Amino acid sequence: MSNSLGKLFVVTSFGESHGRCVGAVVDGCPAGLALSVEDVQKEVDRRKASNSAGSTGRREEDKAEIISGIFNNITTGAPICMIIWNRDIDSSAYEKTRFIPRPGHADYTAYIKYGGFNDYRGGGRFSGRITAGYVMAGAVARKLLSLISIEVLAHTVQIGAIKAGKVPQDKIRDAANRSPVGCADANASEKMVSLIQEVTGQGDSIGGIIEALALNVPVGLGEPVFDTLEGALAGAFFSIPAVKGVEFGSGFLSAGEKGSENNDPFTIENNRIATKTNNSGGVLGGISNGMPVVARIAVKPTASIAQNQQTVNMKTLQNSNIAVHGRHDACIVPRAVPVVEAMMAITLCDLSIRAGLIPEVIK
Amino acid sequence: MSNSLGKLFVVTSFGESHGRCVGAVVDGCPAGLALSVEDVQKEVDRRKASNSAGSTGRREEDKAEIISGIFNNITTGAPICMIIWNRDIDSSAYEKTRFIPRPGHADYTAYIKYGGFNDYRGGGRFSGRITAGYVMAGAVARKLLSLISIEVLAHTVQIGAIKAGKVPQDKIRDAANRSPVGCADANASEKMVSLIQEVTGQGDSIGGIIEALALNVPVGLGEPVFDTLEGALAGAFFSIPAVKGVEFGSGFLSAGEKGSENNDPFTIENNRIATKTNNSGGVLGGISNGMPVVARIAVKPTASIAQNQQTVNMKTLQNSNIAVHGRHDACIVPRAVPVVEAMMAITLCDLSIRAGLIPEVIK
Amino acid sequence: MSNSLGKLFVVTSFGESHGRCVGAVVDGCPAGLALSVEDVQKEVDRRKASNSAGSTGRREEDKAEIISGIFNNITTGAPICMIIWNRDIDSSAYEKTRFIPRPGHADYTAYIKYGGFNDYRGGGRFSGRITAGYVMAGAVARKLLSLISIEVLAHTVQIGAIKAGKVPQDKIRDAANRSPVGCADANASEKMVSLIQEVTGQGDSIGGIIEALALNVPVGLGEPVFDTLEGALAGAFFSIPAVKGVEFGSGFLSAGEKGSENNDPFTIENNRIATKTNNSGGVLGGISNGMPVVARIAVKPTASIAQNQQTVNMKTLQNSNIAVHGRHDACIVPRAVPVVEAMMAITLCDLSIRAGLIPEVIK
Amino acid sequence: MSNSLGKLFVVTSFGESHGRCVGAVVDGCPAGLALSVEDVQKEVDRRKASNSAGSTGRREEDKAEIISGIFNNITTGAPICMIIWNRDIDSSAYEKTRFIPRPGHADYTAYIKYGGFNDYRGGGRFSGRITAGYVMAGAVARKLLSLISIEVLAHTVQIGAIKAGKVPQDKIRDAANRSPVGCADANASEKMVSLIQEVTGQGDSIGGIIEALALNVPVGLGEPVFDTLEGALAGAFFSIPAVKGVEFGSGFLSAGEKGSENNDPFTIENNRIATKTNNSGGVLGGISNGMPVVARIAVKPTASIAQNQQTVNMKTLQNSNIAVHGRHDACIVPRAVPVVEAMMAITLCDLSIRAGLIPEVIK
Repeated sequence: MSNSLGKLFVVTSFGESHGRCVGAVVDGCPAGLALSVEDVQKEVDRRKASNSAGSTGRREEDKAEIISGIFNNITTGAPICMIIWNRDIDSSAYEKTRFIPRPGHADYTAYIKYGGFNDYRGGGRFSGRITAGYVMAGAVARKLLSLISIEVLAHTVQIGAIKAGKVPQDKIRDAANRSPVGCADANASEKMVSLIQEVTGQGDSIGGIIEALALNVPVGLGEPVFDTLEGALAGAFFSIPAVKGVEFGSGFLSAGEKGSENNDPFTIENNRIATKTNNSGGVLGGISNGMPVVARIAVKPTASIAQNQQTVNMKTLQNSNIAVHGRHDACIVPRAVPVVEAMMAITLCDLSIRAGLIPEVIK
Repeated sequence: MSNSLGKLFVVTSFGESHGRCVGAVVDGCPAGLALSVEDVQKEVDRRKASNSAGSTGRREEDKAEIISGIFNNITTGAPICMIIWNRDIDSSAYEKTRFIPRPGHADYTAYIKYGGFNDYRGGGRFSGRITAGYVMAGAVARKLLSLISIEVLAHTVQIGAIKAGKVPQDKIRDAANRSPVGCADANASEKMVSLIQEVTGQGDSIGGIIEALALNVPVGLGEPVFDTLEGALAGAFFSIPAVKGVEFGSGFLSAGEKGSENNDPFTIENNRIATKTNNSGGVLGGISNGMPVVARIAVKPTASIAQNQQTVNMKTLQNSNIAVHGRHDACIVPRAVPVVEAMMAITLCDLSIRAGLIPEVIK
Repeated sequence: MSNSLGKLFVVTSFGESHGRCVGAVVDGCPAGLALSVEDVQKEVDRRKASNSAGSTGRREEDKAEIISGIFNNITTGAPICMIIWNRDIDSSAYEKTRFIPRPGHADYTAYIKYGGFNDYRGGGRFSGRITAGYVMAGAVARKLLSLISIEVLAHTVQIGAIKAGKVPQDKIRDAANRSPVGCADANASEKMVSLIQEVTGQGDSIGGIIEALALNVPVGLGEPVFDTLEGALAGAFFSIPAVKGVEFGSGFLSAGEKGSENNDPFTIENNRIATKTNNSGGVLGGISNGMPVVARIAVKPTASIAQNQQTVNMKTLQNSNIAVHGRHDACIVPRAVPVVEAMMAITLCDLSIRAGLIPEVIK
Repeated sequence: MSNSLGKLFVVTSFGESHGRCVGAVVDGCPAGLALSVEDVQKEVDRRKASNSAGSTGRREEDKAEIISGIFNNITTGAPICMIIWNRDIDSSAYEKTRFIPRPGHADYTAYIKYGGFNDYRGGGRFSGRITAGYVMAGAVARKLLSLISIEVLAHTVQIGAIKAGKVPQDKIRDAANRSPVGCADANASEKMVSLIQEVTGQGDSIGGIIEALALNVPVGLGEPVFDTLEGALAGAFFSIPAVKGVEFGSGFLSAGEKGSENNDPFTIENNRIATKTNNSGGVLGGISNGMPVVARIAVKPTASIAQNQQTVNMKTLQNSNIAVHGRHDACIVPRAVPVVEAMMAITLCDLSIRAGLIPEVIK
């Protein structure tokens, strides 16, 4: 296991889906940052299962607590431990299928890697629920980034075959917030909701794509060659369950382009250097170039589906079947949006501290 | 800068395009591994510019040396330092354009991040040439992986709009080796060569996609949640200049799929657990599942093009123009193939050691 | 702040003296280890303030909880978070002296480093109380080490001018356990108790030396050159408040010796290689040599004393005075004994895993 | 092996005594630092064997080269690789005693840990010669520290039973430089020289103690709790072969003291907070307090002695004898003085960067 992320702003994740809690320790947060439990709760709430189409039936209160590292609602420089206690646990469904791995899940790989000692209830350590811890850490990172005006923003741009149309950058946040699927294009959002209802009805699930943006990023974030901005962000995004692809700027499309199309011409804008296009996604040579950092994250369809699937019995090594009737999201994408933001914020925060942009004490 | 990669098998990269050398230190290689300079040279040679279409005019001998860590052609457990001295350096082209950043390159971001002190000649530390050091480290990793039968293999699957057809897995290596562009589909290979010649004639460049495979990977590689197999590989791939996207298995396509399509059913094959399909790309929950690990890496078109491009003067903050007439590859993809293999081997080697699969001493 | 220790067996410490809790996250513990809260509580209890001479008046229940990482009292491979909630907090004494740093404490340095935002109550993050978290992590490490028969053992060998006589190695543990000051020499123990009572009566405090032993350590622990066994242990010991010196084997005495005296002759014992003496403290070239690892740790006298001391007001920059009338140990040495053991166990555990001696899964 | 030290200013060591070279890569050095090979050579020269009593007969030219990371004698932000090629190698003495471990050396532990594959010639990776690489890295660190006025200084305070008298702090450097044993007390220096000659005549060796000072250290260096100033320095010092103890301020003496004696009273001096005494060695709570940082490092007698010693044959497991007639220093202490300075400089440099005192670019 490797449950710490970052070099100077270090997030340590712990907890399980059906254990006592999920949590995170943030080490390296500068002293002097105003931080209340409400700041953290706000982000946790964005990730909560709602009644919208596609969300799990599990209803957790998800009440965040900060149990170390702040004093009078200001960070002290000490590690910040944050916890959410699990309440609404129903593990009954998992006992009988303990040796029957659910296709698309970590049941099989965890069983082998941890010799069968892994907590298999609800996916245990591999559940999407542990991202509640990421989101708490992300709340700290966001507050730090706001001090240097960096804003992090994610939204759903595709679910199944439905793709969102282009929305002006300054409209995205509000529009995405209004959408039950986190999509800024109202039209597409409606279709996505319908699609999720449709696949839910089929006992099926559906994937999607999230676009993540970081705005007002100064030139200089990213530590080549082995902690490039792209590499660090990608590493963080792949710690979100179900993520299967990450690209920046024109990404996979650039494979089909010529240099004369893909290169972003430099230009002077308001007496500052900018690029006329942003095919690079705001990153040149692994370092931010002052343009918006743009990443796209592919999320596979939820592995848990009610349909009958072929699988095996890991103990008897015989073929078997499973239909997963727990409480799951038919489409994880909407709830992954704030998690993507959290991971982006955590990574940018670490790189900002390393680049000397955030001091050891906030004054 | 952050020039070390890995936790137990640690690669430290150094050197510049037009400095005295490029090199790498490999720390954490077990003692007792047979390792000769020929093992290393072989991989370096695969990366060398050839006379094939699309390659730079720079002709480096690229002679690898191992200057520490082996004794009688066997590793000692001590750090292995490997060096290639630069010979064919012509920096004249760079002096006059020192303050004129080439679009698509790191010239601008490096200038700002390093306060203008960066070695700008030939891209300096940001040149593709530093990947010669990666390849030397990768040669060590490959030899270690071969002890546990893991094989790493990359090939070109797309250049521009030309996509390779499916080639049986056991034919890929030989066919790709025969192709001047590293493409296993002979038909597509020919078209790719033509396309590269065409864009070269236009003073332009072209991007592509490389597929990387790891075969015979046992179940259990990858350290969730922050060093997942996908995250670790992606981080390594993004340290290769020009990489803009990384996906695993069905990757971005899975966004459009349903769970019933995307989930890989488990089955018993030769008395062992396998999956019937491999949409997961061999990774479940961030851990290898015993199927081939399959990644696809998007490479943008070479930034250096002979066509005139709009840019700026970083000193005067005025608009300017540049046509890059140095010695460059019109398509970097073929030469990136062995580099992708190297980064995959390095990452899998580190994770294998962490998983206890490679011991401290090879006997 | 840097609150994580270790490379594969990683301990993250959090919590404050007068905050809500002290705790630790252990990441990298193999799956399959039997671990109950009683295992942890046992070590916590050894560190608790007793009624013996020299102990603080603060009476904490110190009830350990394991809130993640175990399932049915067996480790799962997931991070293990352990917590002790603070109960008996009386911060009144600290408010009025907030800007009056106590000599010998971190009040001044923490005030400057953290810009006055540090939690100053009871020393906050710099209190000896945070070592309760170390001891919980140490309990996990001890259980792992016991699987490979490594035993860790510390005892008081000096308090003030009173030095313990030599006690046969196999008698140390029991004798030290019987002593209220953790000293295996009953005679010296009595005198130490008297001395502590004497200095307590004077409103003063007293220092001491702890010897730490690791028995049955195989040859090969320690990772030269920058994670030598000595360096790794010393780094860990210096994370215990009040430690001011660490030596191995003949340590500082070896400065006065000749090679012919200090070198430990090799010899064959029971058909195995051993050394006739152990001036090296069981470490050669930074690697364990199979003999007992022997360290000595110098602990300064408790900084908190009731006597009047000269100090300053950090705000007004004027001279001032302070007499510390909180609840403190007049001699921290006895309570530091289990903490020294914990830090030794944690370090040896990490090095054992790195050397491949403890597998990823305990079977 | 673990051959990288530091978090942001990272030194990677490589090379062997009788291999092709010794070297170091410094990663994380800010761009813009004036650095010439002469800066490095100067420190290497201080470490060179001279004709003074006690030095090895090996006569290496020890010519330092900087092969990456600088451009026009200014650092670029890229990793700085520095090398000394080995020239005067005579390995003949080692072949016949390959399986006869020299008492006090790493021959036995390296043989076991690396399965007999270690380079045994001249101690290989465990030779004091590798500290030439430390000294090169230290030269870079010193230049960086000089930008913030931190000065690092070490001197011999004891050889055998001969202890140096107290010398005023501002006289130490010059006086120590004039002494062939690096001792600032001229009287003691003479006696030390005689003692070394005496033990050399006896075919023996002798140990000693080095005091290391860091002056003008601002308040705030050190990252509690697991990278305290003391712990980080101690870890670095123990990477020097033959170091067996490290203490700070009153160190082991504080064990015998009362709080009223050991606590350093705070006082106002020139309108700034200082302490009247410096028993803490400039460190409170693991953080520098603005007073001189004072460490004492115990160095054991050189393990190589000409006298006959009892040992074993590792292959036959029979008792044997050895007299080491290679080329060695009878007292390593004088040559270790610049190495101690280097390790202190490297550590303080890393902590200074982490504390934000040295920026990413030197302007």
